[in-house]
Amino acid sequence: MSDDSSGIRFTGAVCPIPLSDYPTVQLAHGGGGRLSQILIEGMFAKAFDNPELEMLHDGAILGVGGSRVAFSTDSFVISPLFFPGGDIGSMAVHGTVNDLAMCGAQPLALSAGFVLEEGLAMDVLWRVTRSMRDAARAAGVPVVTGDTKVVDRGKGDGIYVNTAGIGWVPDAVDLDARRVRAGDRVLLSGPIGDHGIAVLSVREGIGFETSVESDSAALHGLVAAVLEAGGEAVHVLRDPTRGGVASAVVEIADQAGRGILLDEKALPVREEVRGACEILGLDPLYVANEGRVVAFVAPDAADEVLAAMRADPRGR
Amino acid sequence: MSDDSSGIRFTGAVCPIPLSDYPTVQLAHGGGGRLSQILIEGMFAKAFDNPELEMLHDGAILGVGGSRVAFSTDSFVISPLFFPGGDIGSMAVHGTVNDLAMCGAQPLALSAGFVLEEGLAMDVLWRVTRSMRDAARAAGVPVVTGDTKVVDRGKGDGIYVNTAGIGWVPDAVDLDARRVRAGDRVLLSGPIGDHGIAVLSVREGIGFETSVESDSAALHGLVAAVLEAGGEAVHVLRDPTRGGVASAVVEIADQAGRGILLDEKALPVREEVRGACEILGLDPLYVANEGRVVAFVAPDAADEVLAAMRADPRGR
Repeated sequence: MSDDSSGIRFTGAVCPIPLSDYPTVQLAHGGGGRLSQILIEGMFAKAFDNPELEMLHDGAILGVGGSRVAFSTDSFVISPLFFPGGDIGSMAVHGTVNDLAMCGAQPLALSAGFVLEEGLAMDVLWRVTRSMRDAARAAGVPVVTGDTKVVDRGKGDGIYVNTAGIGWVPDAVDLDARRVRAGDRVLLSGPIGDHGIAVLSVREGIGFETSVESDSAALHGLVAAVLEAGGEAVHVLRDPTRGGVASAVVEIADQAGRGILLDEKALPVREEVRGACEILGLDPLYVANEGRVVAFVAPDAADEVLAAMRADPRGR
Repeated sequence: MSDDSSGIRFTGAVCPIPLSDYPTVQLAHGGGGRLSQILIEGMFAKAFDNPELEMLHDGAILGVGGSRVAFSTDSFVISPLFFPGGDIGSMAVHGTVNDLAMCGAQPLALSAGFVLEEGLAMDVLWRVTRSMRDAARAAGVPVVTGDTKVVDRGKGDGIYVNTAGIGWVPDAVDLDARRVRAGDRVLLSGPIGDHGIAVLSVREGIGFETSVESDSAALHGLVAAVLEAGGEAVHVLRDPTRGGVASAVVEIADQAGRGILLDEKALPVREEVRGACEILGLDPLYVANEGRVVAFVAPDAADEVLAAMRADPRGR
């Protein structure tokens, strides 16, 4: 989808996404799959090209004084606002904390930008705010700056939240999909699909026999343990959110220029999640997670890293 | 509006904004005036209380390694997306660059979080993206990380953009409303109300004889010149955006615990802006600016700072 392939020089005068294919923005342009990739690589990456910066999937790393600072952002537009195991507030904290953690950073602070819809019940805003507060306290990462806008009734969906975050990257950390090597083990910190199914169960009004709770959680503690156990042998980390484990692994494979083999039978999926996926016609590999990490680790360190993962409350 | 004054202990169980007064979120809760203050101080500041951090109006400053890092966020929900002198893209870059500048920081990098409405013309997205790119290049502040979400048709308004930014705060900088002293001069970098009137002229379909252009611009260059000229004599800086010069000055007066006298006749207002304000029933002091700075400066340094302001292309 790059305009290089069409032979047109990139001047900015013409939209780099072919308008004949995509005259308008579609829901899938934000879905984390192929259309998202077309939009991000075809438009945003071209416009905001910064060769001097280390651009990662989940954030950027840049030098400030003598330190490396990770910087990341994520917007949360989830419906319903509340679901089993979490809500938009806790998710907005966990999401950006985890994006920083995937850069190998120790998260330091978050920002919160609210876009509220006129007529939102004040008490709902408070429930979300309280949940953000509790999640931020539990993670030990304060919300230090914010912004609030209110849009006309019918121009929003209750609450949209953007969080951005900054973190400190220790000198030794070097996480990059291009460091993935043949023989690397792919480690996964827990069962997959819980978050997506928890949200869908409420959105679609489906009652399951056993309720599935979102796995939404802050992973920086687990990541610190993984990096301590594995050191340089940890090549790349990714949290498989939108698009699920499959999309995360395919993206890493693309960037690494390698094929990756997943043993589907070895992938942990809760019975309730598997059942719900069957009803909904979904593949658990493509369902969103908000508290799992996929780690690519050199084979000789894999056992040690796995042990560290399992010793963490988020990786049991 | 604090629940302290009502004698209720703050536990989080009860919404700290009295629901009898404000059962729902109103447009004015995002307008930058009194209701915004009630929401921010009554709810967000209570929830996200971080005594150890330097909380400023426009951002926060925190230590990373041995450096001070400024961190700020702003969401842009403007309608129409394009207006004389700018658009939501350039404004999103200038707004956060300026928030960092008001902290005395040298802006280093921006994030961009898009919330797009399904059905948005791809070419409109490209025009906005290109404008962000051009504004970021002109300011010398790269967009290094981003996120895109797409919401259902009718749940957005074309494009909402959040930008967050980080900057480096030189050791000597100490900007704080509490440093404002009796006798400080209040310096303003240019005529007021241009941005608000430029946007309203398009939104309300009002044609003026001379078109008014938004003053939207990045001010970090001007701020660096002001700080170099004034040093410690510069006590606080504020960009008078939503709520205009009046709201910015009142807020500083509150924080400083002082009264502030503005000589209304000395405030520069373009003839076209004054005329438009009369037609629309607005006071230019309350109209938004996106490229102006208000500086509170010790009297003996005021002339030098004013000269530095005037020597800058943004302060002529």
